[in-house]
Amino acid sequence: MPQQPATLDRLFQALADPTRRAVVERLGRGPAATSELARPFAMALPSFLQHLEVLERAGLVRSTKYGRVRTFRLTPQPLDAVEDWMTAQRRLWERRLDQFDEYVQTLKESES
Amino acid sequence: MPQQPATLDRLFQALADPTRRAVVERLGRGPAATSELARPFAMALPSFLQHLEVLERAGLVRSTKYGRVRTFRLTPQPLDAVEDWMTAQRRLWERRLDQFDEYVQTLKESES
Repeated sequence: MPQQPATLDRLFQALADPTRRAVVERLGRGPAATSELARPFAMALPSFLQHLEVLERAGLVRSTKYGRVRTFRLTPQPLDAVEDWMTAQRRLWERRLDQFDEYVQTLKESES
Repeated sequence: MPQQPATLDRLFQALADPTRRAVVERLGRGPAATSELARPFAMALPSFLQHLEVLERAGLVRSTKYGRVRTFRLTPQPLDAVEDWMTAQRRLWERRLDQFDEYVQTLKESES
């Protein structure tokens, strides 16, 4: 079982939506105010704010408010957990494929 | 916007659950029958089968049936899309951090 199931749940869930991924991509280029983030999306503001909330709960973005403007920035550290999980899986199945290759090689050698 | 939003949606969604991630981890070590996959989970079989369906729809597993036994195997290629997206994001924000470092360096040099 993964070390932090709840964290990984929240992260994968947060990334399972094209709007939220687009926000992560935008914030990867630097901080932005809510209005700027919302502009590319044909979506009511309350729906868009819910997407930002999901990202904030997953720890992928943080926001600060100055006057009436809320600015969001990416906090990409939690993505390490996603990458670590992916890397662990890749290691598992690549090791298995290597073992399969070795097995096929052994068969070939015993045939010749 | 990502190239394959629907595919990435399905993949991230499939991985946003600890049972489904555990199945991916298990199948990373080799194919397994439904009953063997279900054994570690305190879950009604129909609920467990739904998890397998989600993984199959995302293209992460395939199953074949011989007699009454259905065997599942990992088909990890779709995970490339997830890794590609993660890598693209990391590149974005690391480039931005580099630019920030350069900027700080320029400030330091102009001060001294």
